[in-house]
Parts: sequence; structure tokens; C-alpha cells
Amino acid sequence: MKQIKDLSQGTNHTAIDLDNLEKLMQYSLLHPVNKKEIEGKVFLKDAIKSTGSEISFNSLAPKSEQPYFHIHRKNEETYIILKGFGLFQVDDKCFDIKEGSVIRVAPDGIRGIRNSSDETMTYIVIQSKENSLQEYSTGDGTRVPFESKWKE
Amino acid sequence: MKQIKDLSQGTNHTAIDLDNLEKLMQYSLLHPVNKKEIEGKVFLKDAIKSTGSEISFNSLAPKSEQPYFHIHRKNEETYIILKGFGLFQVDDKCFDIKEGSVIRVAPDGIRGIRNSSDETMTYIVIQSKENSLQEYSTGDGTRVPFESKWKE
Repeated sequence: MKQIKDLSQGTNHTAIDLDNLEKLMQYSLLHPVNKKEIEGKVFLKDAIKSTGSEISFNSLAPKSEQPYFHIHRKNEETYIILKGFGLFQVDDKCFDIKEGSVIRVAPDGIRGIRNSSDETMTYIVIQSKENSLQEYSTGDGTRVPFESKWKE
Repeated sequence: MKQIKDLSQGTNHTAIDLDNLEKLMQYSLLHPVNKKEIEGKVFLKDAIKSTGSEISFNSLAPKSEQPYFHIHRKNEETYIILKGFGLFQVDDKCFDIKEGSVIRVAPDGIRGIRNSSDETMTYIVIQSKENSLQEYSTGDGTRVPFESKWKE
């Protein structure tokens, strides 16, 4: 099973390296409840010490689907499709997805995903607590004068 | 200026299509404060009606850098590098990044990013409120029996 590599850490950051994204299928996850191995899936919260979101990288083999539909309790989920094409279903609505599709699903949405393509589908899922965001866009950031090390 | 395409919406979801990710440079953003156009950047909160995170797609031209360092007030930021390689700096620590690098930065971290490669660097940034996450990994989800439309 592929291991996440540490890249850098400090008081205000933690960075890791997942390696090239076509190698995502080498990661796998032991499901904490049913103890089954899920291939091509890696959660990042523990590795990068997240406190505001749980980000995962996921993959689906060609012509395959997530074998179950699911809902959430507190978290909104956002899916970002990086590679492949297929179908996404929320409740009774099913629609085409492909590279560049982004799907937000509220906790109550019953969701499923299928890879219809002949290549591995790769996608990112972001979980964050529904209604937790206060500042957004450029509104939360402040530019500060600072010297970059790469100019040294 | 490229426009985001709507893909699907319903009570529990909003989905959009950004188009293939190599076309990201066609998006641009008018900065709400200084009114300058920022090329290759698109925020998604309004388009997908997010309530827990602000996700943006970003790009940097070959051999270029974000022209300023910045901090945040309430939000943790996570950077996911999709293409290209370069340098990331948080406070006084500067380190190499490339496809597959993931960097979490706390609000107080003074951050900057540089693309050292000869291709456009593409990366995702996720803003979410620091310490807002309660459930994570598979802990927030519940599988539910449901019929997929793609089996019809």
C-alpha cells in the first residue's frame, strides 16, 4: 500500500506529496467500520492536519461505480472530476460528468457516481461542515509585504 | 472572458462544468477591491452555492509567481497542485512543489507560490473556516439503499 510522503511542516503549515495523480490507484484505505479495502482512495485530514475540511482523492476503475449510495450528517460534499467521464446521481436526478465538472451535494442528498469511460476516473471530494463558511472569495485574505526566498 | 456552464441543480445539489482543465487560463476574475483582472482564476462558491468551503481553480503562467504574499483572517487554505512544478513558501520556509503536492496553511501563515516550470501551473485552493470540521473521513457518511438511474 502506497504511503503519503511528508514534504514540509511548520507552525502554520503541513505539506505532503501524493506523487503523480495517475498513481492514485496505488493508495488504498481500510474502511474503519467494515474493514474492507477500498482501492484508489486516500483521505488527507490526518496527513495535512486539516481543521476546516476533509479532502480525499478518489479513483474508479474503467466502467465501474461506487458500490453504494450515501448521505451525510453534517458535511456538505463537493466533487471535482479530474479525469474520465461518467454519471453522477443526486436523489432522482442523474447527469453526465467529465473532467472539469464540480458538484456540490448537501448532507441530505442521496449520491452516487459512475465511471463510464475506458480509463480510471480520478476525482477529489471535499467535505466541510454545512453553513460553516463566513468569509469567502478574496474577502478573507490580506496581502502582506514579505520577501520571497526564491528571489535570494 | 470564459463563463461557467450550469450542469444540473436540485434541492440537494448544484453542479457546474468548468470545461477541460487546460483551458483554465481562459477564466479571469476582476478583483473586487483593486478592480484588476486576474487571469486563470475562478472562484466557485456562488456558482455551486457552497456553504462550507470556497473552492477556486487557479493557474500561473510559466516561470511566474503570485505577485504578493498573503494571510487570512478566519480561513484555513489548502492548495492542491494539479500540474507544473515550482516553489511554495510559508513564513520563512520555502519548499519544492509539483503535481500531487497538497499544502495546508493556517490563517496566520504568510504564503506565496511560484511556478518554476515551462508549462502553466494549475492548482486548486480550498478555503474553509479554521476548526469548523467536526466529522471526517468516513465518519460523517451513511450508506443508504437506493436505485441508480444508470441501471435502468
